[in-house]
Amino acid sequence: MLSRLFAPTVEVSAHCDLPCGVYDPAQARIEAQSIKAIIEKYHASDDADFRTRALIIKEQRSELVKHHLWVLWTDYFKPQHFEQYPQLHQLFNEATKLAGAAGTKGSNDVAVADQLLAKIDEIAEIFWATKKAS
Amino acid sequence: MLSRLFAPTVEVSAHCDLPCGVYDPAQARIEAQSIKAIIEKYHASDDADFRTRALIIKEQRSELVKHHLWVLWTDYFKPQHFEQYPQLHQLFNEATKLAGAAGTKGSNDVAVADQLLAKIDEIAEIFWATKKAS
Amino acid sequence: MLSRLFAPTVEVSAHCDLPCGVYDPAQARIEAQSIKAIIEKYHASDDADFRTRALIIKEQRSELVKHHLWVLWTDYFKPQHFEQYPQLHQLFNEATKLAGAAGTKGSNDVAVADQLLAKIDEIAEIFWATKKAS
Amino acid sequence: MLSRLFAPTVEVSAHCDLPCGVYDPAQARIEAQSIKAIIEKYHASDDADFRTRALIIKEQRSELVKHHLWVLWTDYFKPQHFEQYPQLHQLFNEATKLAGAAGTKGSNDVAVADQLLAKIDEIAEIFWATKKAS
Amino acid sequence: MLSRLFAPTVEVSAHCDLPCGVYDPAQARIEAQSIKAIIEKYHASDDADFRTRALIIKEQRSELVKHHLWVLWTDYFKPQHFEQYPQLHQLFNEATKLAGAAGTKGSNDVAVADQLLAKIDEIAEIFWATKKAS
Amino acid sequence: MLSRLFAPTVEVSAHCDLPCGVYDPAQARIEAQSIKAIIEKYHASDDADFRTRALIIKEQRSELVKHHLWVLWTDYFKPQHFEQYPQLHQLFNEATKLAGAAGTKGSNDVAVADQLLAKIDEIAEIFWATKKAS
Ligand code: NI
Ligand code: NI
Ligand code: NI
Ligand code: NI
Ligand code: NI
Ligand code: NI
Repeated sequence: MLSRLFAPTVEVSAHCDLPCGVYDPAQARIEAQSIKAIIEKYHASDDADFRTRALIIKEQRSELVKHHLWVLWTDYFKPQHFEQYPQLHQLFNEATKLAGAAGTKGSNDVAVADQLLAKIDEIAEIFWATKKAS
Repeated sequence: MLSRLFAPTVEVSAHCDLPCGVYDPAQARIEAQSIKAIIEKYHASDDADFRTRALIIKEQRSELVKHHLWVLWTDYFKPQHFEQYPQLHQLFNEATKLAGAAGTKGSNDVAVADQLLAKIDEIAEIFWATKKAS
Repeated sequence: MLSRLFAPTVEVSAHCDLPCGVYDPAQARIEAQSIKAIIEKYHASDDADFRTRALIIKEQRSELVKHHLWVLWTDYFKPQHFEQYPQLHQLFNEATKLAGAAGTKGSNDVAVADQLLAKIDEIAEIFWATKKAS
Repeated sequence: MLSRLFAPTVEVSAHCDLPCGVYDPAQARIEAQSIKAIIEKYHASDDADFRTRALIIKEQRSELVKHHLWVLWTDYFKPQHFEQYPQLHQLFNEATKLAGAAGTKGSNDVAVADQLLAKIDEIAEIFWATKKAS
Repeated sequence: MLSRLFAPTVEVSAHCDLPCGVYDPAQARIEAQSIKAIIEKYHASDDADFRTRALIIKEQRSELVKHHLWVLWTDYFKPQHFEQYPQLHQLFNEATKLAGAAGTKGSNDVAVADQLLAKIDEIAEIFWATKKAS
Repeated sequence: MLSRLFAPTVEVSAHCDLPCGVYDPAQARIEAQSIKAIIEKYHASDDADFRTRALIIKEQRSELVKHHLWVLWTDYFKPQHFEQYPQLHQLFNEATKLAGAAGTKGSNDVAVADQLLAKIDEIAEIFWATKKAS
């Protein structure tokens, strides 16, 4: 968190399809972090109702991850990016699948949340490289 | 944006009321940045339909700012924080008003968007101070 | 709720941030009443699936309470109201917390729903007093 | 609306399909009041952007009226009510149409909003009669 | 799936209340098919968390069925249709009830999903008859 | 409806990520048909408010097209499909872009709606081929 403390004015950004031109993988990452925390709390509790609430909320947060990633894939990335990064389509497809039924929706395994976070970080790295290049 | 480029693993965070414990003023700031960009594009265009779309989307993004700030105010900040920062209630009330009818919903003035961003930054500063203290 | 008894023909009203000027604490109260009824039905049933449905719906209704209260706090109440009623910020903060994780979202205790209803009634009393004064 | 006047302490109520058992025509009426106020403000303004915002919000509020009425029609009213009040189906159909394209969505005529309010009041009268009878 | 290949121009259609004039009972039927499949998968699984997810999603899909049917009832069907098909009001009321608390929301019985599908098919038959006649 | 009557066994299908296993490109196509009709009605009208409503609704329907397509791309199609149809990623990316700012959101050109419909039909053809093969 150090970088945050020393860089409180850091520009964060996203995505509305006006387009406003503001995009940021942070939106997907925030929800994925939440999912990981939810799974940890799920395992730390033996209250059945709390666990049910965890499942309800994990379903929503996973959907949000998918949405934010889809927006980046369709709205931010342009044909030239997909030429430059041929793996980008598959990367997004795998990342969104990791937030779905075979991923953090259907699983309570914290390792799955970590895989999702890792995929989002891979995407973020490419995202920021293209931003720097533009 | 330098801090981002050099700190790609920075923790971003938010908000779901399980609670997952993940919160981050970045969510509100992202939408406020979007609002500012929308207003700039609104003024740069003389296409009536584009301007209508800008108004439609600005309405939604302003609502999102309000929502993200309300979540921080109710869910993240605790009684001791409000004691320590007596101005915090008013700060949130003014910030959310700045994203409403008398703010970025009703106005197309980029200065209003800047005021909203400044308020969010004030909130973020307190937020990160309380995070560091906890 | 006394103000209601003495002002029965007052137009029930709410909140859209045009603003339309129509506001009414009844919107939050309706959802809080629903929450209380859901908790009672939860305890009256021993059907696990019904109880899961109760948790799903209680989560949604609690979110609606928070939303309706946030709208009143930001959109209806003006600076002069907060000066006149210095406890108003804290009252709203406590009321919305009572509809969150530490309140009716996380709890199945009917007493918590009653506390939420009582807070909403406190807010409503101030609301109608300011309406009458305006 | 007479029943309201004579039953001011009746619990305001609605609708979630657990069911919680809490229903109240006030939810639809609140939105219809909002619509009427929006139309009045639309006509009182000559600011094109404000008028666009009025149209955006009127669309949403009209949809909410439809939703709240549909919930009453399907979830609250039972077969015996429809036998007892043979006009009830048509009443709801007309009321929801009055909040649609041929009603307050497509029209900026305050008289249409008044017709919608009148229909909701007709429904409310039957609603409270059935509540009293049960 | 051959029929699809040979009937690629089949009009798919729906609902937005501009109105766009595009309506299609398929929207409700798709969600009802989903509900039936969810119930079957619920019974085929003995994983408590999967079953909870099934209940969460069944609740949403049932709500969508209700919404799509309400749209047809209010927006597509006109007074003359209700005169021509006097049973139409009741048919819609029963169909939407079958997707509610006393139907596929509250029940995990696949027979209830089948009843819902049958009602939707009855509605669809009338729908297409009126389309052909217009 | 003749085509429908003669193809009564066509499985309408979608989408929910339980997964229920029910998917159908018809969901995206219905919304795209709506968009085309909205554009036609927009051009046929000279009522400024009607045109504003058309823009509001076209924005929503375009978002729905994107959503339904994203669901197919992430949830229905599996790695082997993308191997078998190497153009599939790009096809989905182009189709969703055609429902975005550079497509039916930003444009009022009926030809753009037709391009979107054509892309959806290309996707549908592959979809049904994979269904037949499975
Ligand atoms: Ni944007
Ligand atoms: Ni959270
Ligand atoms: Ni309002
Ligand atoms: Ni209810
Ligand atoms: Ni339509
Ligand atoms: Ni599904």
